[in-house]
Amino acid sequence: MKNAVNREIPDHLLGSDRQVYQGKYAKDGTYVQKASPRTRRHVKPEETKLCQSIREACERCGAHDGMTFSFHTEFRDGDYVASMVAKVLVEDMGLKDITVAATSLGQAQEVIADYIEAGKITGIQTSGVRGRVGEVISAGKLAQPAIIRSHGGRPRAVEAGEVQIDIAFLAAASADKYGNASGLGGKNNCGSMGFAIHDAYYADHTIIITDCLVDFPNLPASINAIDVDCVCLVDQIGDPSKISTKEARMTENPRELMMAENVAKVMAATPYFKDGFSFQTGVGGPSLAVTQFLEKDLRAKNIKMSFCLGGTSSAICHLQDQGLVDYILDTQDFDQGAIKHLASHPNHLEISLSEYANPANKGAYVNMLDFVVLSALEIDTDFNVNVVTGSDGVLRGAPGGHPDTAAGSKCCIIVTPLTRGRMATVCDLVVTVTTPGDCIDVLVTDYGIAVNPARPDLAESLTAAGIKHVPIQALRDKAYELVGQPDDLEFDDQVVAVVEARDGTILDVVKKVKPFSL
Amino acid sequence: MKNAVNREIPDHLLGSDRQVYQGKYAKDGTYVQKASPRTRRHVKPEETKLCQSIREACERCGAHDGMTFSFHTEFRDGDYVASMVAKVLVEDMGLKDITVAATSLGQAQEVIADYIEAGKITGIQTSGVRGRVGEVISAGKLAQPAIIRSHGGRPRAVEAGEVQIDIAFLAAASADKYGNASGLGGKNNCGSMGFAIHDAYYADHTIIITDCLVDFPNLPASINAIDVDCVCLVDQIGDPSKISTKEARMTENPRELMMAENVAKVMAATPYFKDGFSFQTGVGGPSLAVTQFLEKDLRAKNIKMSFCLGGTSSAICHLQDQGLVDYILDTQDFDQGAIKHLASHPNHLEISLSEYANPANKGAYVNMLDFVVLSALEIDTDFNVNVVTGSDGVLRGAPGGHPDTAAGSKCCIIVTPLTRGRMATVCDLVVTVTTPGDCIDVLVTDYGIAVNPARPDLAESLTAAGIKHVPIQALRDKAYELVGQPDDLEFDDQVVAVVEARDGTILDVVKKVKPFSL
Repeated sequence: MKNAVNREIPDHLLGSDRQVYQGKYAKDGTYVQKASPRTRRHVKPEETKLCQSIREACERCGAHDGMTFSFHTEFRDGDYVASMVAKVLVEDMGLKDITVAATSLGQAQEVIADYIEAGKITGIQTSGVRGRVGEVISAGKLAQPAIIRSHGGRPRAVEAGEVQIDIAFLAAASADKYGNASGLGGKNNCGSMGFAIHDAYYADHTIIITDCLVDFPNLPASINAIDVDCVCLVDQIGDPSKISTKEARMTENPRELMMAENVAKVMAATPYFKDGFSFQTGVGGPSLAVTQFLEKDLRAKNIKMSFCLGGTSSAICHLQDQGLVDYILDTQDFDQGAIKHLASHPNHLEISLSEYANPANKGAYVNMLDFVVLSALEIDTDFNVNVVTGSDGVLRGAPGGHPDTAAGSKCCIIVTPLTRGRMATVCDLVVTVTTPGDCIDVLVTDYGIAVNPARPDLAESLTAAGIKHVPIQALRDKAYELVGQPDDLEFDDQVVAVVEARDGTILDVVKKVKPFSL
Repeated sequence: MKNAVNREIPDHLLGSDRQVYQGKYAKDGTYVQKASPRTRRHVKPEETKLCQSIREACERCGAHDGMTFSFHTEFRDGDYVASMVAKVLVEDMGLKDITVAATSLGQAQEVIADYIEAGKITGIQTSGVRGRVGEVISAGKLAQPAIIRSHGGRPRAVEAGEVQIDIAFLAAASADKYGNASGLGGKNNCGSMGFAIHDAYYADHTIIITDCLVDFPNLPASINAIDVDCVCLVDQIGDPSKISTKEARMTENPRELMMAENVAKVMAATPYFKDGFSFQTGVGGPSLAVTQFLEKDLRAKNIKMSFCLGGTSSAICHLQDQGLVDYILDTQDFDQGAIKHLASHPNHLEISLSEYANPANKGAYVNMLDFVVLSALEIDTDFNVNVVTGSDGVLRGAPGGHPDTAAGSKCCIIVTPLTRGRMATVCDLVVTVTTPGDCIDVLVTDYGIAVNPARPDLAESLTAAGIKHVPIQALRDKAYELVGQPDDLEFDDQVVAVVEARDGTILDVVKKVKPFSL
């Protein structure tokens, strides 16, 4: 059956609880019966939650074959906890048929690829998948198709009961013996624990893993003791120096800086660029660089932003320090500067992924967003974006908040070079649709700008501001002229991953690539 | 069937989901499947939550016959919102068979008594009931027995699905158009909204009622926009000058001051009185006055408290300002000084009733409490306490956090004059058991001190410190000698209220008083 972005979704994936994507606002206003955890009462005073080992905590929380566990990935490439836990479950306890419900998967969690190959981990649900985990999934080695969700789609799925987390293992920079836990105040800080908060509410069991036990009460806390069963002290929960990965560093590439400047010009040309507007940008080079150019425009117009949303970099914190941003609403921190800033600035606040982007709550912050600037691996002439599969069809990306902010914002700008390596970024048909084209408003490339025909108002604003723009087909033609039109990828029939739209419908599927060798 | 405090509970009130009280820790460690609301998705940007009237908000949230609505009572006798809402539901919309799920009921909500008499409001669930509402319930005019719960029992019952709130109407001192709401930052501030937070999570619909609409985002917020359906602007949500009622004022009565000083002495004589201890006191005259005497003892020993819990007065804030308390964990504010202090002191923090005292979560703050000092209307020789029914058997009190803190703390001290008017406070049998005797450790009266025989360790500590104490029977004898032994009250068979223990079992019932006239 074809969905609203014209993708063929195999019938066997559909059912009464699983429909094809029908448009970005198709489920607005409908009621949802929330699911809820089964939790254990702690009535007595003085019961200790401290455990001597992760294994002891797992046993106290009833770890078992067929279980689902979760963790947050705010230490990014420096995360130690997910691997530590997976080893305990699979190797020490010998459990099998395990499902991983992660906020992301990357090189810090490569042991999970081994356990997929060994048939111990049989289910993956994540908002991002990079490195060897993506490769083994793409090679068809996972028992069931992986489910790829956005940052807003994840808490939605948890609340809908589609993901039932048996145990959440949450790395905390500091915690007290009762479980009040924070991403700050320890020896290894990750800053916001926005990825973890919702898991603590909805998991049957929550285990805090920390390397810095502090006096009770550890307040303010990101995770509250009322949601915590056990606390484990380990040597090291992660390496914060690896939080700032390549994707999160500020670019010095002149081509990317030029695109970033053009994005800032596009923003300034729209009617939304007025006092009190709100803004988010992704972590890719040119999108992050936009922040630098905004400062000039804000000062020129003598305006400030009401809030910046989402993943937070030092560049955004700098704007707040200059008085140009009232609030930073922070789901994760991209660098050490942002982590320190969260600890010190009263209007730089941690928010959960549900507050950020959940489309099934009573109104997430993305709904109040004016601008979002995002990157893309590919974008097609229907403005559909792919941020998950590489040009070889292998899983190596993360929707993160991409589909959520694109859907919620008044003006979603994609910024990407026209070609990457020898591949056209603007193309006829993206390998995988991960953000539907009806959510995308403007495309800025190094060879020109295109406006979605669904937004004639924005096209007019750009024209009025003297900003040249062309049909997206012209950019595709230019890309193909530069690097040629790629051959179609060949796929097996086996579906290795389902790309879920933020509302829980199926946006696209990822198939096993043929021929494929690791 | 008799329960663990020796009360006869009529069989027709019992069932598989409703048992008799079996002791304070009987349900520790058991699992609970949490209930959850049915909520409406707000997917689209820019949808307004602002309503022109409470009626419009009610209609948007599907107000209907047979519904249950809730509100918080942190404006205490100055609350306007509950009456406003009840009038809209009953008079404007003509609804019937309505259940009220309140955190308390008093003179500010007397219109509810009218609607009970008119047969429109047929169910009452509350943590306190004073004034005419208590009188009409005691007169048997409510269709079903009222349910009286503690502050911890209320969120437990909500999470258990025993109370399903259709609409929570939450008064907020400030709110933005998206529903981020606070007890601070407005023209009429109540301070902590700890009574309201849990309702917003669990109600199907949440309506914020404010008299001060502020710019988005109104952060930090007590109630988050993701849990809010509608926002109503009204002229006045309450009169904060009525927050500090008689019960919450500091006593100048020399007899009460003497008892308070003795309580402080008892505390100082126990092994818990050491650096980092925690403390809570109730709102009654002598219990509140204890705070004054603690300062001297803290300085003499050169120690400080780790946290003070629960309802907060200026006296507690003063201790924190003196560096004698690390954290104040605040469920409600008893006076203007405390409200201002919450707004300004970084370690004076708002907590929800579930964090405070819910016995079915993974560990509430009451479990970490060293001392609680509480008042009583009556206490019997089994140390059972009554704080709900007057000596005439009529409902006129509030368990509030009494049973929760008594059960959770290491040392629960009851402070009460031996007689009140012409009635013995220490007696053979309390009219109604509202806190079980196994939770009470020490009784301090103006005629002497008694220690619960279940706590020989504490008796020994007091003796070692030279503090005289007597069997509680001696205090009863003295009370009866002073004012005589009262005649037994005469009751009808009709159960007008069920006193629920914090774990959801039945602790006692309140019957219709005979003869009774309003």
